[in-house]
Amino acid sequence: MAGALSGPEIERLVQLLSRLPGLGPRSARRAVLFLLKKKEALLVPLTAALEEAGRKIKSCQTCGNLDSAETCSVCTDPRRDSGLICVVEDVADLWALERAGVFRGRYHVLGGTLSALDGRGPEQLNLAGLVERVKAGGVREVVLGLNATVEGQTTAHYVTDLIAGSGVSVTRLAHGVPVGGELDYLDEGTLAAAFAARRAM
Amino acid sequence: MAGALSGPEIERLVQLLSRLPGLGPRSARRAVLFLLKKKEALLVPLTAALEEAGRKIKSCQTCGNLDSAETCSVCTDPRRDSGLICVVEDVADLWALERAGVFRGRYHVLGGTLSALDGRGPEQLNLAGLVERVKAGGVREVVLGLNATVEGQTTAHYVTDLIAGSGVSVTRLAHGVPVGGELDYLDEGTLAAAFAARRAM
Repeated sequence: MAGALSGPEIERLVQLLSRLPGLGPRSARRAVLFLLKKKEALLVPLTAALEEAGRKIKSCQTCGNLDSAETCSVCTDPRRDSGLICVVEDVADLWALERAGVFRGRYHVLGGTLSALDGRGPEQLNLAGLVERVKAGGVREVVLGLNATVEGQTTAHYVTDLIAGSGVSVTRLAHGVPVGGELDYLDEGTLAAAFAARRAM
Repeated sequence: MAGALSGPEIERLVQLLSRLPGLGPRSARRAVLFLLKKKEALLVPLTAALEEAGRKIKSCQTCGNLDSAETCSVCTDPRRDSGLICVVEDVADLWALERAGVFRGRYHVLGGTLSALDGRGPEQLNLAGLVERVKAGGVREVVLGLNATVEGQTTAHYVTDLIAGSGVSVTRLAHGVPVGGELDYLDEGTLAAAFAARRAM
């Protein structure tokens, strides 16, 4: 094995890198080799960047986004509408919405979904923070940007109940045919949702 | 963009990670998020492992393998046949042969192939070291474990000429049908080589 060959340092690096999503043991080994070949150009700056990110990046105390500031740049941006909060499951979803550039309000990252199967209850999610923000006033609408999965929708219902009675309107993203999607390839659930929500031309 | 969102530290990390083979910008972003979520369990140990590897791992002064020792563990292993040298293009090839566990001699890593197109001449490769090792005596056979590409085979001929006259026999890996391979999917070059090298049952 290469382990016996090249000492424990390389093996340890391969083992850690192969835990990243999208990298298996084989591609992690290729990546390690690439890093060791480009020591000055890549390995050294990557080490420094990881160290800096590990030291500086934390969860925003308001919304749960990741940022180097205590309160993230979305929460402090005065140009963003603080009356609109989009609730997402994960920071990755927040990034996806920002990439699309379609939302100019603020976010709230739950950090997961309710899941009876995985034993995740409401106390595991960042729900108290959301209720607090809604109670603090100034919020007109909470948009549920949760995944259209069973867990996502269960969570959406739970959040709706939680906010009900506060006078804040709760909406969710529309279901339907994805732009560029072909009917032939869509599941029945999507087609049914698209039919139910059909609109006048 | 997420860059404006999450500060320059995350963007820098994404940019560096996306230079690794097998990781595009999108999977690098996913990896960064994963790292930041598992700070203590993954980001911190990975930073330490990279730092250690960057500091300790170097090219073996004899064969070009990567190791934390000046002379690598393959070159110092007394159980390995020092009369046999397998010449490979890259450390990745050395690792692949070690994984297969089919060779118990030593290696010589050229660090590339000759390529007129890419302007790589003999002086860019670790050829002087090979000639030195052959001249030093004790070597019976040099096995060329080079890729069956145009560049690999050009390099193989060059190395053969270089060693010719030293009394050391030069061999190359066999070409043929890969084990588990189906004829229907093989190219003509491989089939021709397999025919030419056919053996009695």
